Amino acid sequence: RGLPGRAGVGRAPVRGSPRGRPPARRCPQRDPHGAPLPYTLGVRGNPYLRGPRLAPAVTSPALFVLRGIPYLSKHRADRVKRLGDFLNRESFDLALLEEVWSEQDFQYLRQKLLPAYPAAHYFRRTWLFSGIIGSGLCVFSKHPIQEFTQHVFTLNGYPYMIHHGDWFCGKAVGLLVLRLGGLVLNAYVTHLHAEYNRQKDIYLAHRVAQAWELAQFIHHTSKKADVVLLCGDLNLHPKDLGFRLLKEWTGLQDAYLETRDFKGPEEGCTMVPQNCYVNRQELEQFPLGIRIDYVLYKAVSGLYIFCKTLRTTTGHEPHGGSPLSDHEALMATLCVRHSPPQHNPSPTHAERSPLISVLREAWTELDQGMAQGRWWATIAGYVIGLGLLLLALLCALAAGGEIREVAVLLWTPSVGLVLGAGAFYLFHVQEAKGLCRARAELQHVLGRAREAQDLGSESQPAGLLGQQEVDRAEEQ
Amino acid sequence: RGLPGRAGVGRAPVRGSPRGRPPARRCPQRDPHGAPLPYTLGVRGNPYLRGPRLAPAVTSPALFVLRGIPYLSKHRADRVKRLGDFLNRESFDLALLEEVWSEQDFQYLRQKLLPAYPAAHYFRRTWLFSGIIGSGLCVFSKHPIQEFTQHVFTLNGYPYMIHHGDWFCGKAVGLLVLRLGGLVLNAYVTHLHAEYNRQKDIYLAHRVAQAWELAQFIHHTSKKADVVLLCGDLNLHPKDLGFRLLKEWTGLQDAYLETRDFKGPEEGCTMVPQNCYVNRQELEQFPLGIRIDYVLYKAVSGLYIFCKTLRTTTGHEPHGGSPLSDHEALMATLCVRHSPPQHNPSPTHAERSPLISVLREAWTELDQGMAQGRWWATIAGYVIGLGLLLLALLCALAAGGEIREVAVLLWTPSVGLVLGAGAFYLFHVQEAKGLCRARAELQHVLGRAREAQDLGSESQPAGLLGQQEVDRAEEQ
Repeated sequence: RGLPGRAGVGRAPVRGSPRGRPPARRCPQRDPHGAPLPYTLGVRGNPYLRGPRLAPAVTSPALFVLRGIPYLSKHRADRVKRLGDFLNRESFDLALLEEVWSEQDFQYLRQKLLPAYPAAHYFRRTWLFSGIIGSGLCVFSKHPIQEFTQHVFTLNGYPYMIHHGDWFCGKAVGLLVLRLGGLVLNAYVTHLHAEYNRQKDIYLAHRVAQAWELAQFIHHTSKKADVVLLCGDLNLHPKDLGFRLLKEWTGLQDAYLETRDFKGPEEGCTMVPQNCYVNRQELEQFPLGIRIDYVLYKAVSGLYIFCKTLRTTTGHEPHGGSPLSDHEALMATLCVRHSPPQHNPSPTHAERSPLISVLREAWTELDQGMAQGRWWATIAGYVIGLGLLLLALLCALAAGGEIREVAVLLWTPSVGLVLGAGAFYLFHVQEAKGLCRARAELQHVLGRAREAQDLGSESQPAGLLGQQEVDRAEEQ
Repeated sequence: RGLPGRAGVGRAPVRGSPRGRPPARRCPQRDPHGAPLPYTLGVRGNPYLRGPRLAPAVTSPALFVLRGIPYLSKHRADRVKRLGDFLNRESFDLALLEEVWSEQDFQYLRQKLLPAYPAAHYFRRTWLFSGIIGSGLCVFSKHPIQEFTQHVFTLNGYPYMIHHGDWFCGKAVGLLVLRLGGLVLNAYVTHLHAEYNRQKDIYLAHRVAQAWELAQFIHHTSKKADVVLLCGDLNLHPKDLGFRLLKEWTGLQDAYLETRDFKGPEEGCTMVPQNCYVNRQELEQFPLGIRIDYVLYKAVSGLYIFCKTLRTTTGHEPHGGSPLSDHEALMATLCVRHSPPQHNPSPTHAERSPLISVLREAWTELDQGMAQGRWWATIAGYVIGLGLLLLALLCALAAGGEIREVAVLLWTPSVGLVLGAGAFYLFHVQEAKGLCRARAELQHVLGRAREAQDLGSESQPAGLLGQQEVDRAEEQ
């Protein structure tokens, strides 16, 4: 969620929710630093902590242009300081932060956390001119970061929706490759476009395209990883199309659904009305709050990963003061143990159906988005024509000598109109192309999934769920 | 090279150049279609054919804006038709085309080639507003395409260099995943920014950043591939920094250097003065031509890949008419055979040195590019200030009533100046950030390579050359 405002402070119910996983078995692993770590392989401790909400008014267009967030946010310095103390106290293996818009804050935290988290990275971003603010994503790690890279989403809202402002933030996914206990862990941190109006969501196609790009990025870059971890503010409810698409295509599991030991607000909500930085009006339909921040994971065949505990904050700071995080911070303990490699058979008809169904649904959504983009481009084309006619008329009037001054005065706004409409036209043409590209990729995957389903072929498409596991099992 | 013009037609010398590889052993492999294919695993036939040069005047700014290439190019339709005939006649496994700017041409070829090349893909591209023309990349394959995706380079020249026009083309890298004979082949096709002035190359930092992004994209997406193939117009000479960076970081081999059977122009040149679409002035310093198009490949441990033959066209069409390709088309026969998996030892000091050295060189180049970008941003800042002062002055004059008409007339250009300088400022700030991001990634790799070298550590960084091979060998 992009722009929670200020609201009252309260306390959310806390519950422990046992679920269907068997009790975890201890499996001591060798830490890269030599100490045995029970319950480790992959990520011990708390892999996800959402960053500080830097300003309730962060989407004011003036902020973006002035980069004034550090000066406009009353609580920023205090929260960043307290966040540093908290991270030092808790000593997670991996702390992933979002919406840290100021690199100075990152540098401050980096210095403060250096002894406890020797490795850190700030995902800078440039995208002309979208994403001028940066990605706001950063990470602190106890373990050396082997590699990192990032991918900025092609589509990310509209530049003229200045009051929403997502376009000016480079919504992206960052990838870190770590080696823990001999395993390769690919940790992804991301932030998708916000949803501002659930009833009439003009960004739906963009968010579906982002979810698809995210899924594709994970799919293509994690083929050699033993463990995949994705943390982020997806701005998607658990049953939303984008979230289902992501889960079906990557095979990631939802820590909240999988863990037997959850403590946090009802329904695992991560944006709750008790948090003083959340705008209660946005939660009118959801009195308990919404769950839009996630810890997702998976492991290759031969490894079994589970979430031992999942904790979230409950909308207020236990020691007083404003909350550190505007969305509730997620703190998980993930455990990985060896299990006999299983040769996954080709997915059956029933197993493929959810993927095909969600791909079809996403295809339709992207297609509608394309039609919408083209429609806006057409409208802009008419406005350009109109503007050019007006300019010609003004030229004629100025040349004729009558109402010359008025004609000259109207010249600037008319040029502005044509240029603005031109930019609008180009933007929506490009939007349609971007959606078309995502749709083409999706259609290809859908085609192959259908082929496999129709033919009952044993040669499962490389992209289908479980392919990685099958490959790994074949090698072993 | 972006803009070859027209020149005379001639004939280039042809040579066969035996090189140090042992004679290839035949290794029949099972084709996915059932027929045994000698000399196959990966790519048989001709994996790379450069696309048609669509118009000698293709970089005219009007072309890009009007998308008028199909109408402005005299030979386009004829060359596209003959290219289709040629591809049908030759029957390659994989034909990768570049600079096919018109999607209609792709659709025409797709229909024409459907029986011989059932699979095809056009890499559409959107990047607001950079890359509005598209990537121009497309591919035709005899074998089913399992997956595809693409990555558009962050930096790609300057929008105000309209006469060069690269910014308006979405320079990108496309990835295709194929399964041939039970092996996973990752085929990449790419096109980097052109070099217009070798003595004073204002795009050097951008091309180094592109080479790095390309190398990183291959590095992160090919970890599970058995065979990696990269074909493209890199716009880099063989000893250029970008090319060395790409080769050192990915471990790819150059088909021209590796093959024992090469036939084509002297020195393997792919842009030769004999080609009537090449501007001879651009080759003043290189009378034989230059080599800027490449077929590069590598295979994992356990497989041995070599280039049996490499042919290029020689600047003219044997059957008369204008050349199909403005750069000389590359046609390779690559062979893959099984070899005993080798446990590559950690690279020695001497082996790491070239990587460290080239990383250091690239770091310096990116750093200089950053400084340059910031300098331009500062200049633009001053111009903005000046423009605002001018606007204030004009307002005062207009309010005062004196030379009011002149003041009003000057208003539009002054606003234009401020807006233009603003866009210039933002662009160069973003350019500096983009270079900073590439430099940060590069610096991280450099740091790890140095660490490994200094400590003689056995725990080789995951990113280092040969890591993939080591991992594969460990698994097997």
